[in-house]
Amino acid sequence: MHECNTGHEVLVVVGQVRPTPGAAAPSLHVLLWQHSLGPAAGRWALPGGEVRDDEDLPTSATRQLDEKVDVRELSHLESVSDFSDPGRVPGRRVFASGFLGVLPSDADPDVPDDTAWFRVDDLPETAFDHAEIIARARIRLAAKLSYSTLGFALAPEEFTLSLLAQLYGAALGHPVDPTNLQRILTRRGELVRCGRSAPPGPSGGRPAALYRFAERRLRITDQFATLRPPGPADG
Amino acid sequence: MHECNTGHEVLVVVGQVRPTPGAAAPSLHVLLWQHSLGPAAGRWALPGGEVRDDEDLPTSATRQLDEKVDVRELSHLESVSDFSDPGRVPGRRVFASGFLGVLPSDADPDVPDDTAWFRVDDLPETAFDHAEIIARARIRLAAKLSYSTLGFALAPEEFTLSLLAQLYGAALGHPVDPTNLQRILTRRGELVRCGRSAPPGPSGGRPAALYRFAERRLRITDQFATLRPPGPADG
Repeated sequence: MHECNTGHEVLVVVGQVRPTPGAAAPSLHVLLWQHSLGPAAGRWALPGGEVRDDEDLPTSATRQLDEKVDVRELSHLESVSDFSDPGRVPGRRVFASGFLGVLPSDADPDVPDDTAWFRVDDLPETAFDHAEIIARARIRLAAKLSYSTLGFALAPEEFTLSLLAQLYGAALGHPVDPTNLQRILTRRGELVRCGRSAPPGPSGGRPAALYRFAERRLRITDQFATLRPPGPADG
Repeated sequence: MHECNTGHEVLVVVGQVRPTPGAAAPSLHVLLWQHSLGPAAGRWALPGGEVRDDEDLPTSATRQLDEKVDVRELSHLESVSDFSDPGRVPGRRVFASGFLGVLPSDADPDVPDDTAWFRVDDLPETAFDHAEIIARARIRLAAKLSYSTLGFALAPEEFTLSLLAQLYGAALGHPVDPTNLQRILTRRGELVRCGRSAPPGPSGGRPAALYRFAERRLRITDQFATLRPPGPADG
């Protein structure tokens, strides 16, 4: 046994599509808190911290979001990558497990005073390797929207196609056409019409149909599914 | 500072599609070594071990495969998940970072005597949570074949469609039709004809065309790529 000079922390990139000040389209934001003391004083950091002896990593991530930034409404939480550079923080070795957490666009957590939302395209000065962790989580989110049903996590229970295209566009980083998005999601069997319409917006216009996701559950949209031999359930 | 009762190890699920004894089709195998001492004596374990103070996780995984099982020919290595149950190994807390390593089907590493290949469908008694790590890596491999170009990692530089379909079938866990596979991979722009044919096999027959992958590099095959606005290069 030697003196313990190794730690293990979880850090969570909490992503939410939120209104962009001064712009029509919303954009992807992340939640950061500002260090007031220590080697990163003044810099902004991801919520998280040391894993306790009696908890696993997802449990720790969930607990720390709850205790430290009052976030409890995640629609999705997944491990993205480990960050294990021996010199990633000064003084001692700390392994970090980076998670992606997603909040639906209609969640409105009451975050503490030292905490704020930042557009991922306009981050403040971040602590240690946190900018890299944010970049990796952002890439994961965009990629996973393409190959899985993760889009549900961005959206409220019910939404118009126009809103959904804005949410995908913000997370993917480029404009998304609602009609093309509808085509892709309908082909995958993900979209269901609610049979009702949204109330007209402030600018009036025709009422827009409301949709929901067939399931709010993560699945890989398998391009090789058509190669699978028919099972008993397929008759 | 307290006594150090926490460790961090890497464990690598080395997967390779290899001939199945007594069957025509090859199958997915993993490389395991047999504990001769300690709490897991007699059980089979994934290659890996403690991360050194001066190395990050991928460096450690690569070093330990080299030093412990003489494997150097990986076509792909990726982190799959952390295994962080506080009681996953007896005596002290050890975080494990589980990696997936892939060997192309024509690699033939000269592994040590206490090491052997096992079909993933017919594993021996494994140590600790290693069966779960293998299961997670297997799911990752199958999913990623569907949404990325990872198939290159299973295959030799040049291959017939018939061999490629066997490799995909072994990794996905169900038969794959060569013509359908060709259609999907051609649509994605992944397959290139070499312009030559393989020598006829022992049973004779027509010579089969040889193919290769356009790139031996991992990319996500983006279903939303068609939604992207045209960039300067597309103009």
